[in-house]
Amino acid sequence: MSAVKELDTPAVTIRLDIMEDNIRRVQAHLAKHGIGNRPHIKTHKIPAIGKLQMQAGAMGITCQKIGEVEVFVDAGVADDILLTFNILGQAKTDRLMALCRRAPGLAVVLDNEVVARELSIAGARHGVDVRFLVECDTGFGRTGVQTPAAAFDLARLAARLPRMQFRGLMTFPNREPTTREFFERALALFKGAGMPVPVVSGGGTPALFTAQNIPMLTEHRAGTCVFNDVMVVSSGTATWDNCAMRVRATVVSRPTDGRAILDCGTKVLTSDQYGQKGFGHVLEYPEAVVGNLSEEHGIVDLSACAERPQVGEIVHVVPNHCCVVSNMVDELYGVRGEAVEVVWPVAARGRVR
Amino acid sequence: MSAVKELDTPAVTIRLDIMEDNIRRVQAHLAKHGIGNRPHIKTHKIPAIGKLQMQAGAMGITCQKIGEVEVFVDAGVADDILLTFNILGQAKTDRLMALCRRAPGLAVVLDNEVVARELSIAGARHGVDVRFLVECDTGFGRTGVQTPAAAFDLARLAARLPRMQFRGLMTFPNREPTTREFFERALALFKGAGMPVPVVSGGGTPALFTAQNIPMLTEHRAGTCVFNDVMVVSSGTATWDNCAMRVRATVVSRPTDGRAILDCGTKVLTSDQYGQKGFGHVLEYPEAVVGNLSEEHGIVDLSACAERPQVGEIVHVVPNHCCVVSNMVDELYGVRGEAVEVVWPVAARGRVR
Repeated sequence: MSAVKELDTPAVTIRLDIMEDNIRRVQAHLAKHGIGNRPHIKTHKIPAIGKLQMQAGAMGITCQKIGEVEVFVDAGVADDILLTFNILGQAKTDRLMALCRRAPGLAVVLDNEVVARELSIAGARHGVDVRFLVECDTGFGRTGVQTPAAAFDLARLAARLPRMQFRGLMTFPNREPTTREFFERALALFKGAGMPVPVVSGGGTPALFTAQNIPMLTEHRAGTCVFNDVMVVSSGTATWDNCAMRVRATVVSRPTDGRAILDCGTKVLTSDQYGQKGFGHVLEYPEAVVGNLSEEHGIVDLSACAERPQVGEIVHVVPNHCCVVSNMVDELYGVRGEAVEVVWPVAARGRVR
Repeated sequence: MSAVKELDTPAVTIRLDIMEDNIRRVQAHLAKHGIGNRPHIKTHKIPAIGKLQMQAGAMGITCQKIGEVEVFVDAGVADDILLTFNILGQAKTDRLMALCRRAPGLAVVLDNEVVARELSIAGARHGVDVRFLVECDTGFGRTGVQTPAAAFDLARLAARLPRMQFRGLMTFPNREPTTREFFERALALFKGAGMPVPVVSGGGTPALFTAQNIPMLTEHRAGTCVFNDVMVVSSGTATWDNCAMRVRATVVSRPTDGRAILDCGTKVLTSDQYGQKGFGHVLEYPEAVVGNLSEEHGIVDLSACAERPQVGEIVHVVPNHCCVVSNMVDELYGVRGEAVEVVWPVAARGRVR
């Protein structure tokens, strides 16, 4: 255990007290409303944190890539895993089938017939049953079938293919009222056909604390809420005190009175902006604007700051989007008080396939 | 050697013929004008590519982080290295001094007195001479002293400190006419004081082919030009045929007639936008707009496309900014014709300190 003050910069630190409180609060909210908690591990990519979420009461986990599932199954974090990505190609379906054997609670989403047929063929090839959910676009405009009728048709088609087991419906993110309306109409179609829908899975951190307003949800998937970030604070569902991730950085230059340069740029904070004014929130100088980033430089506008930092000073930046920041570094530093309590390798970092 | 068609997606591929041509063309241009070529390795972070640049005639290399210097010195790529970052703190200055012993041609830039004094103290502590350039802000508004007089004053102050050896001036990027005017005035001050300025170092890929218009430059540093990308093409200094980096991706969903979803999002392409309309250029569908990215999804607007891809189809995306893309993955695939000729580990990936 070393002292935080000896931690060289830039370093991505996690305030353990805050993270633990976030895990408890999310679990308590969803449990109170009888909604299963299936945290998305894309935010931390660290099995030890997944285990803390499971110990707090999570029903299972969510992964976005097969490589993430492999890391979390290897670490024994959970058997009940939802992989929320269309899986295509034999290289990937072979890996997926091997995982289905090892984690019988694994399910995967799909939104088109090509994926359904490839999964069925792979299941038959490997002698494995494939549990699937149909992904529904309930307003976000990314992946997912476009109508309740399309969800029903695809589910029925896929469920009739060899080795395919229909488990339910999934969307990202929850949007009101469109998500509720979409699921209401879809569930009526399934009920009319006598086809059970055991799982209705919603998602997203900003939607987490209102997930109970979509009464058919059986589970909710959220990632960011384990750490929180500028986006979540600006959505009104967290405060700076709930932000566990802080990028520890050094002021390496003060070229003008109104400008400071930090030793963290896009290769730590990333360019994710999401409509924010800058690229992060400097806790020690809340009026500062991280207005621009180069790859290794953070360019900070101090013009609104009464107090201004000196060269060599350490500051802490809450990033716009924490999920992408853990993916930029090889380790996260878990900090309590003045001590670095744990150094976590980001085990699933860079698992893009 | 495997076949490109067996390469699972997403994969960051490098067309070797194009890269080799880029290396030759850059070297030939700078050599023709008597300007030293000091490629910036931040773009590839791969020693084997650095060696190709050195074999083509580069005088040395540029690094942005000490961790990059360590990887490239370990690999024996170059002895003549410029580290273009203000180095602060004993953890870093100790590492830097160890590198100065191993690579006597290593020099570092600085733009303020705090850094100069720390480097001098470290040099004295280790018994090592520290070669330094003064960084000048000639119009970009990032790091660097603000005036020619400030450059002269800082150089003289730092050069008088124990173990500090003044080597010259540096800027990023070259801007006309401000860069030339800044250096003219600065060099006059040094000449008046009888203080030699052996090195005047410019930088930037868009400025590379006009570097000769700044006649005092002794060397030029550019990174992106080894691969090229949407930014360079839009600056007019390369064409799509000069773009060696292509992200191989699969169309995993076609939720609507006008929308395709790729299996590469910000965790491969990054959010770097730089004023472009989208987040990359799809070579097979040049009218397509990669209008939005999630972490693992590329959301492509096909409305301007006469031909449109099917689910399962492979496409190739030239990224907006290649330097950040190599940093997202563990390996780059060097491709010639239909074969994967080499798989390079991105050895200095994630070296943020």
